[in-house]
Amino acid sequence: MQFQYDARTEELREALLDFMGTHVHPAEAAFHQQLERLENPWAWDSAPVMGELRAEACRRGLWNLFLPGEEGAGLTNLQYAALAEISGRSLHLAPPAMNCAAPDTGNMEVLALVGTEQQKKQWLEPLLAGEIRSAFAMTEPAVASSDATNIETSIVRDGDEYVLNGRKWWITGAMNPNAKIFIVMGKTDPTADRHRQQSMILVERDTPGFEIHRGMTVYGYDDREHGGHAELSFDNVRVPAANLLGAEGDGFAIAQARLGPGRIHHCMRAIGTAERAIELLCARADERVAFGKPLAEQGVIRDWIAESRVRIEQLRLLVLKTAWLMDTVGNKGAHAEIQAIKIATPSTVEWILDKAIQVHGAGGLSQDFPLASMIAGIRTLRFADGPDEVHKNALARVELRRQAGSRTKH
Amino acid sequence: MQFQYDARTEELREALLDFMGTHVHPAEAAFHQQLERLENPWAWDSAPVMGELRAEACRRGLWNLFLPGEEGAGLTNLQYAALAEISGRSLHLAPPAMNCAAPDTGNMEVLALVGTEQQKKQWLEPLLAGEIRSAFAMTEPAVASSDATNIETSIVRDGDEYVLNGRKWWITGAMNPNAKIFIVMGKTDPTADRHRQQSMILVERDTPGFEIHRGMTVYGYDDREHGGHAELSFDNVRVPAANLLGAEGDGFAIAQARLGPGRIHHCMRAIGTAERAIELLCARADERVAFGKPLAEQGVIRDWIAESRVRIEQLRLLVLKTAWLMDTVGNKGAHAEIQAIKIATPSTVEWILDKAIQVHGAGGLSQDFPLASMIAGIRTLRFADGPDEVHKNALARVELRRQAGSRTKH
Amino acid sequence: MQFQYDARTEELREALLDFMGTHVHPAEAAFHQQLERLENPWAWDSAPVMGELRAEACRRGLWNLFLPGEEGAGLTNLQYAALAEISGRSLHLAPPAMNCAAPDTGNMEVLALVGTEQQKKQWLEPLLAGEIRSAFAMTEPAVASSDATNIETSIVRDGDEYVLNGRKWWITGAMNPNAKIFIVMGKTDPTADRHRQQSMILVERDTPGFEIHRGMTVYGYDDREHGGHAELSFDNVRVPAANLLGAEGDGFAIAQARLGPGRIHHCMRAIGTAERAIELLCARADERVAFGKPLAEQGVIRDWIAESRVRIEQLRLLVLKTAWLMDTVGNKGAHAEIQAIKIATPSTVEWILDKAIQVHGAGGLSQDFPLASMIAGIRTLRFADGPDEVHKNALARVELRRQAGSRTKH
Amino acid sequence: MQFQYDARTEELREALLDFMGTHVHPAEAAFHQQLERLENPWAWDSAPVMGELRAEACRRGLWNLFLPGEEGAGLTNLQYAALAEISGRSLHLAPPAMNCAAPDTGNMEVLALVGTEQQKKQWLEPLLAGEIRSAFAMTEPAVASSDATNIETSIVRDGDEYVLNGRKWWITGAMNPNAKIFIVMGKTDPTADRHRQQSMILVERDTPGFEIHRGMTVYGYDDREHGGHAELSFDNVRVPAANLLGAEGDGFAIAQARLGPGRIHHCMRAIGTAERAIELLCARADERVAFGKPLAEQGVIRDWIAESRVRIEQLRLLVLKTAWLMDTVGNKGAHAEIQAIKIATPSTVEWILDKAIQVHGAGGLSQDFPLASMIAGIRTLRFADGPDEVHKNALARVELRRQAGSRTKH
Repeated sequence: MQFQYDARTEELREALLDFMGTHVHPAEAAFHQQLERLENPWAWDSAPVMGELRAEACRRGLWNLFLPGEEGAGLTNLQYAALAEISGRSLHLAPPAMNCAAPDTGNMEVLALVGTEQQKKQWLEPLLAGEIRSAFAMTEPAVASSDATNIETSIVRDGDEYVLNGRKWWITGAMNPNAKIFIVMGKTDPTADRHRQQSMILVERDTPGFEIHRGMTVYGYDDREHGGHAELSFDNVRVPAANLLGAEGDGFAIAQARLGPGRIHHCMRAIGTAERAIELLCARADERVAFGKPLAEQGVIRDWIAESRVRIEQLRLLVLKTAWLMDTVGNKGAHAEIQAIKIATPSTVEWILDKAIQVHGAGGLSQDFPLASMIAGIRTLRFADGPDEVHKNALARVELRRQAGSRTKH
Repeated sequence: MQFQYDARTEELREALLDFMGTHVHPAEAAFHQQLERLENPWAWDSAPVMGELRAEACRRGLWNLFLPGEEGAGLTNLQYAALAEISGRSLHLAPPAMNCAAPDTGNMEVLALVGTEQQKKQWLEPLLAGEIRSAFAMTEPAVASSDATNIETSIVRDGDEYVLNGRKWWITGAMNPNAKIFIVMGKTDPTADRHRQQSMILVERDTPGFEIHRGMTVYGYDDREHGGHAELSFDNVRVPAANLLGAEGDGFAIAQARLGPGRIHHCMRAIGTAERAIELLCARADERVAFGKPLAEQGVIRDWIAESRVRIEQLRLLVLKTAWLMDTVGNKGAHAEIQAIKIATPSTVEWILDKAIQVHGAGGLSQDFPLASMIAGIRTLRFADGPDEVHKNALARVELRRQAGSRTKH
Repeated sequence: MQFQYDARTEELREALLDFMGTHVHPAEAAFHQQLERLENPWAWDSAPVMGELRAEACRRGLWNLFLPGEEGAGLTNLQYAALAEISGRSLHLAPPAMNCAAPDTGNMEVLALVGTEQQKKQWLEPLLAGEIRSAFAMTEPAVASSDATNIETSIVRDGDEYVLNGRKWWITGAMNPNAKIFIVMGKTDPTADRHRQQSMILVERDTPGFEIHRGMTVYGYDDREHGGHAELSFDNVRVPAANLLGAEGDGFAIAQARLGPGRIHHCMRAIGTAERAIELLCARADERVAFGKPLAEQGVIRDWIAESRVRIEQLRLLVLKTAWLMDTVGNKGAHAEIQAIKIATPSTVEWILDKAIQVHGAGGLSQDFPLASMIAGIRTLRFADGPDEVHKNALARVELRRQAGSRTKH
Repeated sequence: MQFQYDARTEELREALLDFMGTHVHPAEAAFHQQLERLENPWAWDSAPVMGELRAEACRRGLWNLFLPGEEGAGLTNLQYAALAEISGRSLHLAPPAMNCAAPDTGNMEVLALVGTEQQKKQWLEPLLAGEIRSAFAMTEPAVASSDATNIETSIVRDGDEYVLNGRKWWITGAMNPNAKIFIVMGKTDPTADRHRQQSMILVERDTPGFEIHRGMTVYGYDDREHGGHAELSFDNVRVPAANLLGAEGDGFAIAQARLGPGRIHHCMRAIGTAERAIELLCARADERVAFGKPLAEQGVIRDWIAESRVRIEQLRLLVLKTAWLMDTVGNKGAHAEIQAIKIATPSTVEWILDKAIQVHGAGGLSQDFPLASMIAGIRTLRFADGPDEVHKNALARVELRRQAGSRTKH
């Protein structure tokens, strides 16, 4: 057991930290101002400063680092995790600047994993080159999204085509007109085994019958910084049969494969967000004077700082261990840990953000600091891939089974 | 000791509940739609449906109920508290429909209490008639607002006029162009005793040098439903000396007097908000099925429901007792309780809202339910009139002193 | 609605507070010393100082105040609640000194309510006179005690006698040899309706076949101060048929009737315990200096003090309202509130005690302060009459039903 | 970074787990029964079963594993940490069986580190051989023990002797008559620098003027299983000057050196205790039926199980990382982490134990399960080496300083 990042990771961390300090953080204010003035408010990748950042990240070799294997940077989950954390310190800018933002990352992984040569050429290449955006359409308004087998969207074969009918919502990035390609999850065979009913298929943005209705808000944010969260519908949408990802019935398995690395990325970015919040909290506590002394000398605020540090240190180790397990024993072997970090991360980070806001006074809730927007983003993680409560229930079942097994052995 | 509302309260509660059921709740959707289409998005009182509601409330005698004494409905704090709770079930509509919305309520109280005949005629009458709106400008960006003695805005006598200089923010309602009159807190004599330095003065919206800069957001919401929260500045603003409220140096005392009833109103409305959230939570839990049974049969969700009920019952009793104390022994005698409800209310209600959101899934965070907007509003209460931490510190000091006194006696 | 105790209550409170100050608190140390030296360590009522206190309480008219109606002091639940709180400040001395200690109180209530003339003469009179003690045997080791219908002890009619077989534990007070009479709950007809299977019967201590095995400990305490918690068994124990309380099948109903007032007493005494803890906490915080200033000036400790005050005020009001409901609409009408106080009280008071201990340092855990023993006692309340979780589940069901009903109405 | 124990650790873990399964756990009941029958109830090492366990552990090479360097097993902190966890599963038996119980471990470390040849021969050797016990006397009743510089016991040179005067309490193990040697911390020069005033000196049990007064209780436990916690006094106690450990003024530094490894041991044993509690919780939840289904199917209990697993996994990683830091950068470099684990461990483990108790019903509080005794032991850790609050304050100061430093750099 040892707790030091390897040399490759340290090197990349240093490179990324330099990029953050010299380019990303200085661009934050400008990006948000430019967003306000965009013709299409959802087309965040049209903001000039974002284009410059992306070009610079590419030049510095900080591009597509999330992608394992030959098509990508070849980093392990553990190596990339350390970088994902850093990018989470400027969540609206750093991940997209590095072409490492969800949902494109997961979509590229899927295409790299199961895409045909034609699919890769047509969609993976422009995504890797950062020329287009994409979306992943799974969640549906009518059913509890915590159970992927509930999906009601239908994908029916008709000659050389598939016909889609259904409704989705919370499809992140989809309001951005540059999101040209959608991976859509639906059922090709509702009578098959529970986990073989689903398939995934590629749908182009401008396909007839495919409509994007509105952006959902989170608290009061429309999240235009990453293309919003759309409600959309498929009304007899026809796509070529060649657009299917893998075989019919592979949908659930692909979704599971997509999940693991995504969970690591989300959690590590959230930890980066928490670290940024601790920074802001400490800076504010040092500088703000009330009742004759800096807030930093108030015992209650010190308590928050200590708790924040103690909690985030523990959480980071668990996420890193999970990444290491995925690298060494695979997603399946890391299953319980992947659930554990999904449970632990949002509540821990939300707690820290709440305290950072409190130290900032009412300003902390406003547009003058990034904290309010951060907490909105983190709050959604308590639902992402199903509410925490579902995951706790499942994790407990695993634990009970494990303990029962070990009792039998003795 | 007895725990039943008196006959007058029961009668008014019934009348108000009827108004809520037949007019207010049915108008909620329309109000928010009309707000979107207003020429000036901040002029919520121009929304047609609001006009109709106000006319109806007036017709029904549900108008200005907050105001004690002859100028108002003559209700005690305890009697009005029960009504404030009900109005909190539809926070954006019911209080303004009844001309019982902050900050107008507190401003009318101040004018009724210390206004000259001329001030009353010019400002209190149109406010009571619901013809204009008002704002209360105390909080400043540069100093910790938890301590009213920190105020930096200056109010300097110059002949028959006072000259104001300073900057304020989080001035609720001020973005609304119909907010015609501002009560502004500043210092007339920075060398006087700590609590005699401040004065309050009336400033008309269109006075030269008085500028309204921007609306602050809360979790992404601009709160246009009640006129936003403005940042504004006074640059050599000149007002007639007759605009002073009370005498020079009375500012702190007036602020204190204004605080008590406002605290009761805020807390009771927040309890109404929590009750609405519990309703929504239970309805959703009954109707939403996951893993083969309604959420209402999940133990964890039952735990939340029970905790919500147990906490809100306790909280309501404490707020009602505080109102009763204000009625019987006055604001001073109720001082510790007024602090206690300020501490207890926001965290209790925020907890309940968080659970209600969680039961609604991601939709609970969106525009499709009122819960996300509710939690943003409640979150601000953890700062209102100073952060909870300051109030806890003060309450503890009172408790320590009381205990020390009682030790000495023995 | 009004929040003042009535004149009779105030008068009795004053009398009781005087008794506490002049007699009870001064006797605390001596009582515990005398307990150590008793021949039978469980016979707490043989400690000389306890005899003196009881005589004095009797002389002052502070005797049997818990008992309503003609046989007792005729106080309402609300009136007695205020006194129960005060007695909770010295839990080991005050309630027994006033002949108001569980389980005797509940047993006397049962006898007063359903006892025959003969039963009253034989058992209620000496209990009211304080000449003997009693116990209440319901909980069983083999089954979840949260459900009274689970009871397995059998009570079988055989001629003029009933024959008892079964095992009980956590029978408070039963280790005291002066506990001469036991009210035992068992099943007379396991085939009857769920709530008509149970009966209660009186069993004398020295009846053949009735054995007392051991005292259970709570966090290492044997609770000899109130006669311990015994495990006991009935092996073909024969008692006269005239010992039955009420009719066959009345057991469950009697248990329910016994529950309501007992819950009020427990909760109010717990609140008194919490108030004592807050006193100790404040005194210690004022007097103990660390890092150059009294603990009372540490922000974290102030936070604990404020939270303690805010929580206990809310809790007290809820318990008092419940007592008032019992007085005005009866146990049934107060059902939800009786559950609510069972849920709210232990966790609130345990939290306060934990903080009081923490302020005392390691000494707070030891025999040098009453806090450790207090927290052990309070901890058991999270199980008493079933674990909190069961009560929360039931309360949630009530709430869901109520909300569903109110939805239908609209 | 990698998260696997090394081969040596795995080998020792396997050996220890075998010893636990075949010898330690089976002996638990007997040990507690034998303790009850000891002539001197504090002489736990006289219990026959303990002698047998110690002989067996020795035979198996599971002896003195805690001690680094040539005198011990030469394990790193990280390697030993994994074993300490396992021993914590049977806290009263395993650590003493392996001669790895506090306070002997810390005392042997001190003797190995700074002892003279003579001191080692006279005291370290019999301690390593397990022939005697020892105690460490630092905490004092009159002063806040969170600050070692507060110590009031005096150690004054007088010719060839030192003379001790002072009072100590909470001296663990000291009630055991076989605790033959005490390391006593006192002040040799109250006028020196703050951290050079203290010295440590060896005092034999039977030295005139050295008196042991009483055992302190924790909740209701006297902790005789590890020799209790004594209050003791030194009244002109004279010891040879050669008994001094290191030089005059070294006391504080020695205390600090002793602290790091002890913290790791405590925390890892506490984690083992928590794992044992989770085992008991799961077993009970599977087996106990209420309301028609096993507790294991109740959502709230599942929530506790999942939370327990998620929290303990995070905590373990932080403690292991701290051990690794101590091995690689030393105690100083690991300072913040040593504080962090002191803060995180007790509250996490206490929470888990509380839930395990709750699942066991009232029995969980009693002598029938080890849980109540476990929670008492863990509760003391919130005070050990100063209350958590002091450590949080210090950790926050470190964080604030670190953040300020990093702000300056940019």
